[in-house]
Amino acid sequence: MTERVREILSWYESDNPGTRTNLARLLNHGRLGGTGKFVILPVDQGFEHGPARSFAPNPAGYDPDYHFQLAIEAGCNAYAAPLGFIEAGAANFLGEIPLILKLNNHDVLYDEKDPLSAVTGSVDDALRLGCAAVGFTIYPGSTQARIMYEEAREIAKEAKSKGLAVVLWSYPRGSGLSKEGETAIDVVTYAAQIAAQLGAHIIKVKLPSAHIELGEAKKVYQRYHIPIETVTDRVRHVVQSAFNGKRIVIFSGGPRSEDEAFFGEARAIRDGGGFGSIIGRNSFQRQKAEGLAFLRTVMGIYAGEIQ
Amino acid sequence: MTERVREILSWYESDNPGTRTNLARLLNHGRLGGTGKFVILPVDQGFEHGPARSFAPNPAGYDPDYHFQLAIEAGCNAYAAPLGFIEAGAANFLGEIPLILKLNNHDVLYDEKDPLSAVTGSVDDALRLGCAAVGFTIYPGSTQARIMYEEAREIAKEAKSKGLAVVLWSYPRGSGLSKEGETAIDVVTYAAQIAAQLGAHIIKVKLPSAHIELGEAKKVYQRYHIPIETVTDRVRHVVQSAFNGKRIVIFSGGPRSEDEAFFGEARAIRDGGGFGSIIGRNSFQRQKAEGLAFLRTVMGIYAGEIQ
Amino acid sequence: MTERVREILSWYESDNPGTRTNLARLLNHGRLGGTGKFVILPVDQGFEHGPARSFAPNPAGYDPDYHFQLAIEAGCNAYAAPLGFIEAGAANFLGEIPLILKLNNHDVLYDEKDPLSAVTGSVDDALRLGCAAVGFTIYPGSTQARIMYEEAREIAKEAKSKGLAVVLWSYPRGSGLSKEGETAIDVVTYAAQIAAQLGAHIIKVKLPSAHIELGEAKKVYQRYHIPIETVTDRVRHVVQSAFNGKRIVIFSGGPRSEDEAFFGEARAIRDGGGFGSIIGRNSFQRQKAEGLAFLRTVMGIYAGEIQ
Amino acid sequence: MTERVREILSWYESDNPGTRTNLARLLNHGRLGGTGKFVILPVDQGFEHGPARSFAPNPAGYDPDYHFQLAIEAGCNAYAAPLGFIEAGAANFLGEIPLILKLNNHDVLYDEKDPLSAVTGSVDDALRLGCAAVGFTIYPGSTQARIMYEEAREIAKEAKSKGLAVVLWSYPRGSGLSKEGETAIDVVTYAAQIAAQLGAHIIKVKLPSAHIELGEAKKVYQRYHIPIETVTDRVRHVVQSAFNGKRIVIFSGGPRSEDEAFFGEARAIRDGGGFGSIIGRNSFQRQKAEGLAFLRTVMGIYAGEIQ
Amino acid sequence: MTERVREILSWYESDNPGTRTNLARLLNHGRLGGTGKFVILPVDQGFEHGPARSFAPNPAGYDPDYHFQLAIEAGCNAYAAPLGFIEAGAANFLGEIPLILKLNNHDVLYDEKDPLSAVTGSVDDALRLGCAAVGFTIYPGSTQARIMYEEAREIAKEAKSKGLAVVLWSYPRGSGLSKEGETAIDVVTYAAQIAAQLGAHIIKVKLPSAHIELGEAKKVYQRYHIPIETVTDRVRHVVQSAFNGKRIVIFSGGPRSEDEAFFGEARAIRDGGGFGSIIGRNSFQRQKAEGLAFLRTVMGIYAGEIQ
Repeated sequence: MTERVREILSWYESDNPGTRTNLARLLNHGRLGGTGKFVILPVDQGFEHGPARSFAPNPAGYDPDYHFQLAIEAGCNAYAAPLGFIEAGAANFLGEIPLILKLNNHDVLYDEKDPLSAVTGSVDDALRLGCAAVGFTIYPGSTQARIMYEEAREIAKEAKSKGLAVVLWSYPRGSGLSKEGETAIDVVTYAAQIAAQLGAHIIKVKLPSAHIELGEAKKVYQRYHIPIETVTDRVRHVVQSAFNGKRIVIFSGGPRSEDEAFFGEARAIRDGGGFGSIIGRNSFQRQKAEGLAFLRTVMGIYAGEIQ
Repeated sequence: MTERVREILSWYESDNPGTRTNLARLLNHGRLGGTGKFVILPVDQGFEHGPARSFAPNPAGYDPDYHFQLAIEAGCNAYAAPLGFIEAGAANFLGEIPLILKLNNHDVLYDEKDPLSAVTGSVDDALRLGCAAVGFTIYPGSTQARIMYEEAREIAKEAKSKGLAVVLWSYPRGSGLSKEGETAIDVVTYAAQIAAQLGAHIIKVKLPSAHIELGEAKKVYQRYHIPIETVTDRVRHVVQSAFNGKRIVIFSGGPRSEDEAFFGEARAIRDGGGFGSIIGRNSFQRQKAEGLAFLRTVMGIYAGEIQ
Repeated sequence: MTERVREILSWYESDNPGTRTNLARLLNHGRLGGTGKFVILPVDQGFEHGPARSFAPNPAGYDPDYHFQLAIEAGCNAYAAPLGFIEAGAANFLGEIPLILKLNNHDVLYDEKDPLSAVTGSVDDALRLGCAAVGFTIYPGSTQARIMYEEAREIAKEAKSKGLAVVLWSYPRGSGLSKEGETAIDVVTYAAQIAAQLGAHIIKVKLPSAHIELGEAKKVYQRYHIPIETVTDRVRHVVQSAFNGKRIVIFSGGPRSEDEAFFGEARAIRDGGGFGSIIGRNSFQRQKAEGLAFLRTVMGIYAGEIQ
Repeated sequence: MTERVREILSWYESDNPGTRTNLARLLNHGRLGGTGKFVILPVDQGFEHGPARSFAPNPAGYDPDYHFQLAIEAGCNAYAAPLGFIEAGAANFLGEIPLILKLNNHDVLYDEKDPLSAVTGSVDDALRLGCAAVGFTIYPGSTQARIMYEEAREIAKEAKSKGLAVVLWSYPRGSGLSKEGETAIDVVTYAAQIAAQLGAHIIKVKLPSAHIELGEAKKVYQRYHIPIETVTDRVRHVVQSAFNGKRIVIFSGGPRSEDEAFFGEARAIRDGGGFGSIIGRNSFQRQKAEGLAFLRTVMGIYAGEIQ
Repeated sequence: MTERVREILSWYESDNPGTRTNLARLLNHGRLGGTGKFVILPVDQGFEHGPARSFAPNPAGYDPDYHFQLAIEAGCNAYAAPLGFIEAGAANFLGEIPLILKLNNHDVLYDEKDPLSAVTGSVDDALRLGCAAVGFTIYPGSTQARIMYEEAREIAKEAKSKGLAVVLWSYPRGSGLSKEGETAIDVVTYAAQIAAQLGAHIIKVKLPSAHIELGEAKKVYQRYHIPIETVTDRVRHVVQSAFNGKRIVIFSGGPRSEDEAFFGEARAIRDGGGFGSIIGRNSFQRQKAEGLAFLRTVMGIYAGEIQ
């Protein structure tokens, strides 16, 4: 075990050895194993946006096995997906990559302003499918947030008692926020804090903008001159907001974007003390060779081999 | 066991031997046994539309035994019905045909825009009645969809742990969709994907039209030239959307129609890689001899004996 | 055991011996024992309409013992009442008459358009009080129907596993229906079908009128010339709609009416193949001697001794 | 055991010996022990109306021990209070007076038209605190009545299985009723009937007026000339409506009133066959000596020693 | 054990020895151990107001370990925080300070008029993390109050059965109250009474103003001349309202304020018989040395060493 992995695991000493073993699996697997950095492949877009929008750009992605193979070959730390995708492939790739079962999902056939994802899997499903962790999405700012916090907490409690790690996707949206506010720096840091207080081991947030949404927060940012000008500044502030860096925070890749812009963001995440990226559409919506090359560049940046 | 059945079962290796045994029973029973194709008799219309609308065209159908006999004599893979019908006949036809207990139902005495079916049976009912599978309907696009997804998932979890197979009827409707959108190609494929991600072994959808409902989806269909002109094209795209063909997708027969039109659709389903049909009103609303002849023709098409 | 009782019990072979024993007790008890016909005394009007409206016409009825005595002396097949009445008398009349514990009730101190009865008793209460069956009311056509169906099903499941019989009162009402529609022939047959599909052993409906409520149903009644002109025709059609006569259907007596009219309806029920009547106000709202005479006449009609 | 106590207990023979033992404790305790009459001290006004409104008239009442002492010294049959008050004193007065744990409560900091009390205690709390009974309030006429009936029934079921007695406060109010209707004779008798049907052993209602609220009821009261002119008449009719006197009905004292008026009501309750009073504010809002004297007079009336 | 601690514990004799042991731990720990007075450090502002608003004034507070250290070094009786903060530090400070796990939380990303906090932790979490007590917030006056009362009671019941102490934060707000009414003397005393009746061992309220919110209460305050002019008067009245001083009531510090004003309030709390303060922002939003000095002064006031 590297010193860095040992240090990270020391933040989770309230957890039982089972959960810490699974955190260690995530930290030690793949190309970034041992560095304390993460690149995770998530594929829930089939449920969230529909199959054609997700997989038509690279039809190989309709097949559940494809994403296991992509994550394994790229050397990701883990592969995250909903029940159906994990069930379809788990028996074919036993032990080849840590799995994160995503336990709630939302579709856009009815697309409400204050969404509440459906719980689509359970901790026991994760266990029977050999997963290392469970994932769950909360939408702070939604009128439904309370329900999702309580579901997240119930799942976290059960997962921890059964030796799994807990990953929360904390994505602000809903009636409490403007569109711009969903990625505002005060809102994203607040979302990271909420996820940490709910007991998440790993927190996934969006890369924040320099916008400040809430009036009370704005006064504080100005009074204390909190640096938020650059992406690196903002990443550092998000990491600080997740228990002063004592919780793993990784950043969402978002929709397919220009490679150089993406690599620039990865550098900023690295330089700001972020723990890595969760990269879906930017990897599986390309031809496989291209996707692998892309992921390797990102991993190289996180490993510090590419500047 | 035929090679095709072995191949199909290989997609479900995450399931326990009990569940795979029941999938094998469905695949190996009746006229199409071993071909990987399905014709299933479903009779829930008494609940869904009322008794006279369902059974007056052929009053023999008021009797629960009739449908068991029809399915057995026609050589269907299975017979699906709500609790009352299965309870009324199960003891009379022990082991003569695989049974699918339909676990939720809806009536039209109060016919709401965003329907939520009542849960009318349980996994334990299916076990005590000797069923091979449970069935459940979800309505993606309804404001109530989240509740049905969660019910479906709970039932699927329990069924799988108790060795049963899971069939989801995925029928888009409700406030999120136009009437035409309920059978739009992007919507039906999305419905198939959702059912697959929820962990269905067998997915039942309606035969889609070439209409595209959602703006974001339309851009993708155009940009990637996804073929949806013919019924065969669309069936192929639905099958692709159900984990690249690794989940069994069968198509709903709908209301009583012209025989030749129906046979044409069966050919398209077959040629597009579909796994078969679930045929209710087109079979039981005829005199028995006529119904049997009709079903045999459809089976002949699926078996490849009738072009 | 008579041939008729044996035949009726043969329709319930999916049930365990405990439940069939209790069905046999109901079929074999009292003046009509062995005939396959039923006259049941129900007294839930104290809860449903208030005590004075129910018992002032014959104040002996304020006393819970009175109804036990009335049902026993008249030779009814069973006595049905809510928890309080059964608790008050059960220990005084041990084994003298089969009891049906009515498990939900509604009052009119707040009288809503779409009623949802309160669950006021449990299957375990029925067991500890020595009952043969549980009773439950559903209101198809109400916006609340789904909840009642699910409650009915839960109760039926538990009752069957514990060896009790299940009686459903299926009374259409609520936003989905006009006042006239509540007793329309298409609606009452639909209500009988729903109760049967929910797993009821015994179904209680109101005597239907010749009115047809639903447009889609009307087309079918006309196209197939379903006979609904006379009460006897309509009873026959209700019985057909309850699994072609393979579920016991009995008819509600309704408010106090003229004796001759009532006897005429009993003849029509008998001649249409109905299984009998559930008679409350017409029996207990008279002086006891008169009530007994009335009930004996009805039983004579069902026994075929009075034409 | 007196003959009267033996007679009263005979109405509860469906209950287990544990519950009947606790009923016997209530019947045999204190100044009225053995007479079949009751005076109970209830103190939930701190929760229901606030502390100053309840206890400022006699500040000794802020202290939980005070009410135990008052009830014991006065010779009440029982003392009823919410969880906090019972927890605070139970260990100090072990076995000195039967206790009734009030299991739901409502406050007026938010005072809604259709109130639903919060469940604030459990049957197991009553057991661990050595109580003889549990108490629960229902509000017939409220849009929320169904929920309270179901909660009452759940609690009654559990209490009976664990050997406790069940006291229901049945207080009509809410959207279904006018203000005057809350104490109308037809409404109070209906409330008593509902509580009895829900399985209450002891029913607490308000003393009714001669007003008749419901149109259907009015017709019956007129047609059958039900006597409701005097308080004694109305008490007799309430007692009749509670299973012809086979359930214990006691009457609520209401807000602090003139002594002579109160004593007159007690005489009417006694002469109409009522079982006694539950007296809170009229006793604990006085200086202790005065409160004791007041309670002794009421008990003297019930004992028949004071005319 | 001091006499005062023994006296305080005597009020909780209905509790099991496990719970009383934990109350004793809280009473005997730190600078005020044995005096019967409390200063508790609560840090849930990261969740309630967001991380920057809470921790930017003293960025050391982003780190969960900081608050443990602050509470330990200052000699607080206990440290209270949500799940995440306690999990992050519990293993580092085993047994060094009694912990209170705060079991519900609310954020302002969606800030509703009638808030309902999310349940974010459980009694079992408190046990596995070595806590002495659980904390829970109720908002009397909110349309959601009933739900919170029931949650509080469920948690209190479980905590007591598992040997933990129960702390309720009782903060009136919502539709039932004006802004000024949230701290009105009649409302705060009512809130203290409700918490006591719900079974709290320790009650946390805000320091009340002399405003009276409710009309019915105003009449009583005037009629009985209840003294509420000074802070000391009002503290005394709050303590009286919590079972005549037989429940521990401590007062909330509120937002960062002038030191002298704060010390004045502490003197008034002490002189009015209050049990102490819960001080968050006034302590952790300063540099550590300054925070420790501040807390020591407050403790000196409570210990009676500083006048």
